[in-house]
Amino acid sequence: MAVPSVLTPQSEDFPKWYQDVVAKAEMADNGPVRGTMVIRPYGYAIWERIQSAIDGRIKLAGAQNAYFPLFIPESYLSKEAEHVEGFSPELAVVTHAGGERLAEPIVVRPTSETVIGEFMAKWIQSYRDLPLLLNQWANVVRWELRPRLFLRSSEFLWQEGHTAHASAEDASAYAMRIHLRVYNDFLEKVLAVPTFLGIKPPSERFAGATNTMTCEGMMRDGKALQMATSHELGQNFARAFDIYYQSEEGQAQLCFTTSWGASTRLVGGLIMAHGDDNGLVLPPAVAPWVAVVVAVREDEEILAACRRLHEELTHGGVRAQLDDGRRGSFGRRVTDWEMKGVPVRVEVGPRDLAQGLVTVVRRDTGEKFPVALSEVASLVLRLAEDIQRDMYQAATAFRDARTSDVTSLDEAIVAAQSGFARLTWDLVGEAGEARLKAEAMTVRCLQRSDGSIPANDLEEGLIAIIAKSY
Amino acid sequence: MAVPSVLTPQSEDFPKWYQDVVAKAEMADNGPVRGTMVIRPYGYAIWERIQSAIDGRIKLAGAQNAYFPLFIPESYLSKEAEHVEGFSPELAVVTHAGGERLAEPIVVRPTSETVIGEFMAKWIQSYRDLPLLLNQWANVVRWELRPRLFLRSSEFLWQEGHTAHASAEDASAYAMRIHLRVYNDFLEKVLAVPTFLGIKPPSERFAGATNTMTCEGMMRDGKALQMATSHELGQNFARAFDIYYQSEEGQAQLCFTTSWGASTRLVGGLIMAHGDDNGLVLPPAVAPWVAVVVAVREDEEILAACRRLHEELTHGGVRAQLDDGRRGSFGRRVTDWEMKGVPVRVEVGPRDLAQGLVTVVRRDTGEKFPVALSEVASLVLRLAEDIQRDMYQAATAFRDARTSDVTSLDEAIVAAQSGFARLTWDLVGEAGEARLKAEAMTVRCLQRSDGSIPANDLEEGLIAIIAKSY
Repeated sequence: MAVPSVLTPQSEDFPKWYQDVVAKAEMADNGPVRGTMVIRPYGYAIWERIQSAIDGRIKLAGAQNAYFPLFIPESYLSKEAEHVEGFSPELAVVTHAGGERLAEPIVVRPTSETVIGEFMAKWIQSYRDLPLLLNQWANVVRWELRPRLFLRSSEFLWQEGHTAHASAEDASAYAMRIHLRVYNDFLEKVLAVPTFLGIKPPSERFAGATNTMTCEGMMRDGKALQMATSHELGQNFARAFDIYYQSEEGQAQLCFTTSWGASTRLVGGLIMAHGDDNGLVLPPAVAPWVAVVVAVREDEEILAACRRLHEELTHGGVRAQLDDGRRGSFGRRVTDWEMKGVPVRVEVGPRDLAQGLVTVVRRDTGEKFPVALSEVASLVLRLAEDIQRDMYQAATAFRDARTSDVTSLDEAIVAAQSGFARLTWDLVGEAGEARLKAEAMTVRCLQRSDGSIPANDLEEGLIAIIAKSY
Repeated sequence: MAVPSVLTPQSEDFPKWYQDVVAKAEMADNGPVRGTMVIRPYGYAIWERIQSAIDGRIKLAGAQNAYFPLFIPESYLSKEAEHVEGFSPELAVVTHAGGERLAEPIVVRPTSETVIGEFMAKWIQSYRDLPLLLNQWANVVRWELRPRLFLRSSEFLWQEGHTAHASAEDASAYAMRIHLRVYNDFLEKVLAVPTFLGIKPPSERFAGATNTMTCEGMMRDGKALQMATSHELGQNFARAFDIYYQSEEGQAQLCFTTSWGASTRLVGGLIMAHGDDNGLVLPPAVAPWVAVVVAVREDEEILAACRRLHEELTHGGVRAQLDDGRRGSFGRRVTDWEMKGVPVRVEVGPRDLAQGLVTVVRRDTGEKFPVALSEVASLVLRLAEDIQRDMYQAATAFRDARTSDVTSLDEAIVAAQSGFARLTWDLVGEAGEARLKAEAMTVRCLQRSDGSIPANDLEEGLIAIIAKSY
């Protein structure tokens, strides 16, 4: 049954398509204060699944959750020179509290390196206390002049990991471990988003970092989205906040620290990496409901069959929703479930039911097939695995088709109109970065020619991934 | 083996004992901005278990999680007169952001009735959209002049539920359902804290509520702590924010709303309801580790046995920690595990081990018994259940022993020096409340004589629970 799309097509106006999907799938709304965001229940249910998947991986990597204050004395930010320069224009400042003007203004955290640095200095005494591996789930505020829901909001939700180590090597290895086993593993297995892994060129590093690793995903319009970043901070914050430890030999040594984060921006990436002209397309691992059982119309017999199927699915471990047919026409309801990107639709109608059948529809491919009632539960479980795998493969094929190896900056600029360009980093340089900027493009990351992550930007033979980005 | 206590005894100085426990069990630290709090990993692990237990119950009650902005336009607060009056002195105000002075100051949410009210008005169209059942986990800010970690902090973490209903009856029934099946069930079964349930006298209601229900727990010094509250807001916020629905008959009707919350204050309540002179005493359901396997000293054979036990416990579904004996003397380590309140300690020493035995110690009662290696895992599982039940019973016995039925305000004032007094509400009244206030006491709640929750304060024969409180 063909239902006309209610979205602006992606090919016509991708940003408008995005805005439409966010609204019509009931993911989020703009908040009353400029740039803030209301995450609606369906959007938040997706975020909860993202949180849970990332949190589990962080714990496996040995980090412990904690919570540090929202409010940071303004003076803390200034302790690390590049850090304050990077964040000053984005800060929200509390000047009054408890009915009085404050002696020192308070900054609403834009990130927590400074306040966590202060406590690391307090908690770390000896080499036995290292590594100190902390993480927090929190809201942060960075004032946005051109806000876009999930992608750029003045307040967003994230996790920020902060660790302290005895050596540069240990810090570096841990940041790499987080980057690969937490972020990239999550992106591949849960969000089904393939990435280009690499380090940022020096011009794009986090304010205060000595090295920034990134996972760059490709959206359906060929632009890049930075999905997560991991920073080596060297001894910059350790020096600013006196994070010393006593070595086995009894000497005071400065620690090496790292930080790494992923945010509600991932929800934006999920929407733009998989969505189509009918709305969201969710990988089963992150979908609030893997399947919806849809009554074709309101009818006692149909409803009874739907309830049985819903129960079977739930007992079988499938997160399932029941659409009892009471809310509008079948066509309208199908459009809504497609908009919400539910991976599998089980449609129960009178003609099929008379033959002991239902119709199962895959959201990602649109394939429909008749299935015997008794086989629905096991089929949905199998389909969930298939869809998860196929979506990753489809996204990888899409990305690869839109990624070009080029041999000059001119070619890169042409290729990056609609995808990613791979060009030897030697052929870019600072002058090249300026030219790219004029074309609204950037070097998204530097990687080795085999796609692996280099230790730093000074390695020979690095490849620059060039693209437009969010 | 007797280890000297390192805490100020409860009987000597309860507030100092509390402060010591919070520091020495590594639960929390003061943040750099007045009244803010750093929740350390051990404290946060407890909070995560509290969150998970409450969140599951909230979802069973049909509410959905969402997220609303931290920042609220100052004008929103003023829309409900009692609400703004109640919160004004506690607000933190952002006046500058993005490098500029803001046209309208922004308030950091002290609670979210106003901003959620705004969106309820937008999302609710017809009676079919009701009830609308929302919850959010968030940080809120209420400026505190006399901060105490977990109990009163300028920023705290909480969940706040907000619901809209078609009728006062439905709103009232839902608030009661949350109060009993979410909060009180959690307090009994997870925190092992018995409560007195009832409604607040009008003078103690939430700012803007028509009725406030509370769960009052008794701390080890006989004072009360309000563990969670549920508010009926009548049509006050619906009127202020135009939350209308179209009835089945097609008429525009004002909704009835509720709100309900529980916060990191619960961690303070957990500490004070069960702790003793050796530190925390945690009920197994909320303990980050139910058992710790302690090597009496560093020794290969002992360590091998400890590792096997730790693995067996973990495989058996027990959250277990391993103390390999490398961090200080046995006595010092035992003191630390007692301070952290780990419910069961499995001590593995050479003499016991030679006989195939270990020593198991209950944190709550201090009982020790020799156990065969092969029986440790099953015993710990059984003990976890026993301890959970026994702690609830012990707390109930303690509370009952310190609760007196009295027949005059004078007697109430005597009894409430060290516990709770139960007095006919008729004998208190406004004048009585003023006298109690002068004694630093309040009416914690009003309940029916059978202990159940009255519909409002106008019912005949209500009993006032009078106590000092946090």
